[in-house]
Amino acid sequence: MNIQKVKAYGTYAANEPLKQMAITRRSIGKTDVELEVLYCGICHSDLHQIHNDFGHTMWPVVPGHEIVGRVKAVGEHVSKFKVGQLAAIGCIVDSCKTCQFCEHDTEQFCEEGTTFSFNSPDKYMGGEQTYGGFSDLYVCDERYVLQMPEFKDLAAAAPLLCAGITVYSPLKHWNIKEGSKVGILGVGGLGHIAIKIAKALGAEVTVFTTSDNKIADAKRLGADYAVLSTDTVQLQEYNKKFDFILDTISAKHDVNQYLNLLTWEGSLVLVGLPPESLEVGAFNVVYGRRSFSGSNIGGIAETQEMLDFCFKHDITADIELIDVEQINNAFSRLEKGDIKYRFVVDLQNNI
Amino acid sequence: MNIQKVKAYGTYAANEPLKQMAITRRSIGKTDVELEVLYCGICHSDLHQIHNDFGHTMWPVVPGHEIVGRVKAVGEHVSKFKVGQLAAIGCIVDSCKTCQFCEHDTEQFCEEGTTFSFNSPDKYMGGEQTYGGFSDLYVCDERYVLQMPEFKDLAAAAPLLCAGITVYSPLKHWNIKEGSKVGILGVGGLGHIAIKIAKALGAEVTVFTTSDNKIADAKRLGADYAVLSTDTVQLQEYNKKFDFILDTISAKHDVNQYLNLLTWEGSLVLVGLPPESLEVGAFNVVYGRRSFSGSNIGGIAETQEMLDFCFKHDITADIELIDVEQINNAFSRLEKGDIKYRFVVDLQNNI
Repeated sequence: MNIQKVKAYGTYAANEPLKQMAITRRSIGKTDVELEVLYCGICHSDLHQIHNDFGHTMWPVVPGHEIVGRVKAVGEHVSKFKVGQLAAIGCIVDSCKTCQFCEHDTEQFCEEGTTFSFNSPDKYMGGEQTYGGFSDLYVCDERYVLQMPEFKDLAAAAPLLCAGITVYSPLKHWNIKEGSKVGILGVGGLGHIAIKIAKALGAEVTVFTTSDNKIADAKRLGADYAVLSTDTVQLQEYNKKFDFILDTISAKHDVNQYLNLLTWEGSLVLVGLPPESLEVGAFNVVYGRRSFSGSNIGGIAETQEMLDFCFKHDITADIELIDVEQINNAFSRLEKGDIKYRFVVDLQNNI
Repeated sequence: MNIQKVKAYGTYAANEPLKQMAITRRSIGKTDVELEVLYCGICHSDLHQIHNDFGHTMWPVVPGHEIVGRVKAVGEHVSKFKVGQLAAIGCIVDSCKTCQFCEHDTEQFCEEGTTFSFNSPDKYMGGEQTYGGFSDLYVCDERYVLQMPEFKDLAAAAPLLCAGITVYSPLKHWNIKEGSKVGILGVGGLGHIAIKIAKALGAEVTVFTTSDNKIADAKRLGADYAVLSTDTVQLQEYNKKFDFILDTISAKHDVNQYLNLLTWEGSLVLVGLPPESLEVGAFNVVYGRRSFSGSNIGGIAETQEMLDFCFKHDITADIELIDVEQINNAFSRLEKGDIKYRFVVDLQNNI
């Protein structure tokens, strides 16, 4: 395996600022696409990994898994991509390709373990960790590379690669359609895209937020109703109203008050990743045969479907575009929730 | 509305022993069946109600909702029952009959509120509470009365009316069939019937119990495997193995260790009613799109289906038959878990 040195932005230890570093990637293989990175979004899970919140960060860590780029080179057996075209890489960059899940386009469930775009053991590199999109290029098997539609604002489409599929997949899996009554908890990176996609699917959308100043914004983003979740009186008006609630909150919170807003056989689906357990009352699921479920990104085919859907419906994220020099500032602002609603790093001229 | 005085066994306050008392029931109406009670099972929720564990017990309370009897009289418009035949009454004795749920045979979800066989406001009696099956007779609209098959051991069939439908309904709803891999948590009143029904549906059944002395018994009841749930090493062998786990535990317990035993998109379904909330880790539902759900009894049509299924497969509960004089002793033994696996009260000659 030939390797190449690549410039990237990462950190060697938790709580140290990110800085420029040299990493190694494999040289392009026969079925690989080499992507010049144009834009990469910053996701809340990047923050978790650089803080080692889940205890399994491998150092150094180069975050970034919402990668939009231009094809710089293709391996000799690559059939779906041409040099010069737009392409994208999301959370998944490898899997076993042969298990029941890989065969059914749900590589996120791969029985041998999905290789994520960063902080995963990289089979091509002898188990060294994968490095993410805060880098000038990325090498990936074409099976895991997405066709990137010509979005008017390409940078604003980058967050679709993780935030977009994370909310699109459960909305589709739980069959949200014209007339569905959908609740969305939290208006952040995930929640603000969920509003747009749920509306495009035809749902009636009600947003719950703890931030008074996000009420008007939720409506601007397309929500039919927006409710301050600390207002327990108003909350009760929504008792048993929702077929489906998408929970994008990544900190500990009271899910029982929202389970009560589900109609019979309704589902509350968690896509945030609060590090602490959440308390669920037996009565809140037993009465009405309700469910508390989770969902994690989506497979490659569904990610492509989501990109095409968002392009058709003119859906992108609301972003703040930054240079690499601003990454550390962006992470500390993200930690405080001071972003409407997603940072995207411009990597074209910075590295 | 004419009323009649009826003998019953109940209590006027929490933590006082049950004793014989006189209650009033309506006299038989045009669509009513009057049932001479033969047998009534003792359910864990009877214990919760006489202790007022959920804070909404109305006094006096006469428990009992697993009622097998013989038809003593029928109203002039009753078409499905004849005097002298066997019949049964379970948890539900009334509902609005017109909402979407009543129209689709899921009266347990009635929009106006289901009337349960005891401790519910009784519309026929001006809102006085309903009184349960520890009584010499019960009057009920024929819509909510079940045809009782001629079980060889009629007393042992009584617990099917609540315990049976409580476990049958989720097994059917989550489509358990030939080859399904089912876990059952707890071997008690609910769990021991769940083993029998899941096996009759064709599933491979693994039971988890905290009691060493129930391991052999779980196998006698039909389980393919029985695991001591405190043995965390053995537990790990079952990682990702189950399509479905039925959780019959009615005390606080760690559901996360069982969520990890679910395969992708598997469901853990709670039918016990622990008074305290249960902690669910985000990762345990997000990875693999797993669900933590609940289920509550079943509708009248499904209860009839369950009785017919159990009769066909020769399924009844393992019971200890007692006289009314032994009720208080039975409740205190139930509280200690000292019963394999259900008490049934013989009400024929006692009152």
